[in-house]
Amino acid sequence: MAHGSSGDSIKISFEDLRALLKRIFLKAGAAQTVADILADNCAACERDGCHSHGIFRMPGYVTNLETGWVDGRAVPTAQEVGPSFLRIDARNGFAQPSFEAFRPQIGQIIEATGVAVVAINNSHHFSALWPELEPFAQVGFVGISVVTGGCVVVPPGGRKRVLGTNPIAFATPVGGSDPLIFDFATSNMSHGDLTIAAGAGRKVPYGTGVDRHGRLSDDPVVINDGGGILPFGGHKGAALSLMVEVLASALTGGKFAAEVDFTGYPEANAPKTGQLLIFIDPRRGGNVGFSNRVRDLLEMLRHAGQERFPSQQRYQRRAAAMKDGIPIRAADFENLEALAIGGSPAR
Amino acid sequence: MAHGSSGDSIKISFEDLRALLKRIFLKAGAAQTVADILADNCAACERDGCHSHGIFRMPGYVTNLETGWVDGRAVPTAQEVGPSFLRIDARNGFAQPSFEAFRPQIGQIIEATGVAVVAINNSHHFSALWPELEPFAQVGFVGISVVTGGCVVVPPGGRKRVLGTNPIAFATPVGGSDPLIFDFATSNMSHGDLTIAAGAGRKVPYGTGVDRHGRLSDDPVVINDGGGILPFGGHKGAALSLMVEVLASALTGGKFAAEVDFTGYPEANAPKTGQLLIFIDPRRGGNVGFSNRVRDLLEMLRHAGQERFPSQQRYQRRAAAMKDGIPIRAADFENLEALAIGGSPAR
Repeated sequence: MAHGSSGDSIKISFEDLRALLKRIFLKAGAAQTVADILADNCAACERDGCHSHGIFRMPGYVTNLETGWVDGRAVPTAQEVGPSFLRIDARNGFAQPSFEAFRPQIGQIIEATGVAVVAINNSHHFSALWPELEPFAQVGFVGISVVTGGCVVVPPGGRKRVLGTNPIAFATPVGGSDPLIFDFATSNMSHGDLTIAAGAGRKVPYGTGVDRHGRLSDDPVVINDGGGILPFGGHKGAALSLMVEVLASALTGGKFAAEVDFTGYPEANAPKTGQLLIFIDPRRGGNVGFSNRVRDLLEMLRHAGQERFPSQQRYQRRAAAMKDGIPIRAADFENLEALAIGGSPAR
Repeated sequence: MAHGSSGDSIKISFEDLRALLKRIFLKAGAAQTVADILADNCAACERDGCHSHGIFRMPGYVTNLETGWVDGRAVPTAQEVGPSFLRIDARNGFAQPSFEAFRPQIGQIIEATGVAVVAINNSHHFSALWPELEPFAQVGFVGISVVTGGCVVVPPGGRKRVLGTNPIAFATPVGGSDPLIFDFATSNMSHGDLTIAAGAGRKVPYGTGVDRHGRLSDDPVVINDGGGILPFGGHKGAALSLMVEVLASALTGGKFAAEVDFTGYPEANAPKTGQLLIFIDPRRGGNVGFSNRVRDLLEMLRHAGQERFPSQQRYQRRAAAMKDGIPIRAADFENLEALAIGGSPAR
């Protein structure tokens, strides 16, 4: 299955990684379609270098499924509450399979009306947001996605975690090129990256979060232990985090980050909250030049000296991984193989 | 007209200020309805303490109208391009009168479908965004508004202004209380506030913007003179600024900030770009408890120690101003009176 190795690291093809991850999801009790969708999603994150949402997440997926905290066999339901407005109940499953189940219908809604608002509740989102948006941007639609994340964020001036990491993603077609997609936590750092830093013994920038007494800290262990992460960008980021919670939880009818009750599931960590997506067909009404206009804007920014753009690095890593395989550590690969046969990963 | 004075400052009622501003707009050539709407908007900003969008803007309004850069008698047109999607052509007028002209239709669209996307182009927006959202939030709808602003923002790592100040506003009903509305520039500072700081001889925080050579600066005069403001919050704020320009300019069919050509209008400064608004009825589909859910979220944040919330201070200032009058400097009042009879304001 591994294509080649160099020292502690091996390379694996996207297809092989996806197949391995699918075996793990099936072993953890997920239905075939759920396992397909989550394996594709997680392998794509690893392929694109989004390590905080790649194979790093697999032990968590397994725990959330095996304990029954998340229903890997949930059958989502949907209701068109308006010509451009679809409500989905994920029935305690992961958000992605519930979205995928109604993706053709969502596409039809956008084609028919130029707009789709998709409100998902009773859902767990444990990954990046760009994978849901990318296929829509590839066929010409802009998309916005917000999710209420795990309750790890302390409001500015506060002493207690209330908000989720509450990511915002946006995707737009770009004439003659891959879509431009950004996808970031409204916290100073994603909880995944914080946990990776804690595991690696690395400090984080001072002020990333606070300790349990509300004092600013640069220690991810201390921030994770009774403290919390702060929103990015001061009061503006805090306002955006609040907006995400209003849209992805209150508007969908889902739970707020602070309301998720893990009683009886001490090892589970996937937040059962909600997700809101908004799609618009920018060409609707005769605006046919849209994607080339976006290309022109990016050209102006490049010309002004901007060198890095959202999602650029992901596409570069993807191209390299599709050519040469996805680099993963040999120890991580062994842990995945152990998960696939139902064993515990080595610590 | 002034209700009372104390030293250099007087107090004027909202109604009297609105009437005075209307006279100025009429004198500058605006149609009756346009003058009504802009006077109400500008007086409301002053009343609520949004000084960068209050009477400070009046000389600019007059210049933009009198030079013909903005058409104060424009008759906007609209087209329903989908059941939840309205495109408005402001025909080179200010955005607010074009929005106001179709406000009943927008309300009907939300009532009928639960969603309204409103794309305005050929429009000038010279004020805060919350005034358009507030009436919708008061009747139960959430709203998002983005506008491409004046070209004063340098992208991160860049040397040249490309982006507008590109504000984002969000409004949500709150059970038993005024709507919560935030409204902020995705630049480190609004251009209005930067100009006020420059006029007052105040420094701004280091890194608010760059000088003409791309070096970080704390001098608003230097930033305004060939340099530019940076986006807030590093690469995340820069990504949001880019999103605003895609939504409010490319998607609406309007101009980007960097494309607005003031040739022949050297004194004009209202950006002729576009605006996108998205309204959603959160109760659609049976989610009747929405506004009380938002109230609960705010309660949790208060309990965690958050003391300030978006729009809170505006409502406090509004209440005080409605009771005691709006405090303005006597010199500013005299300048407004001069504008109303067509004279130049004292310098």
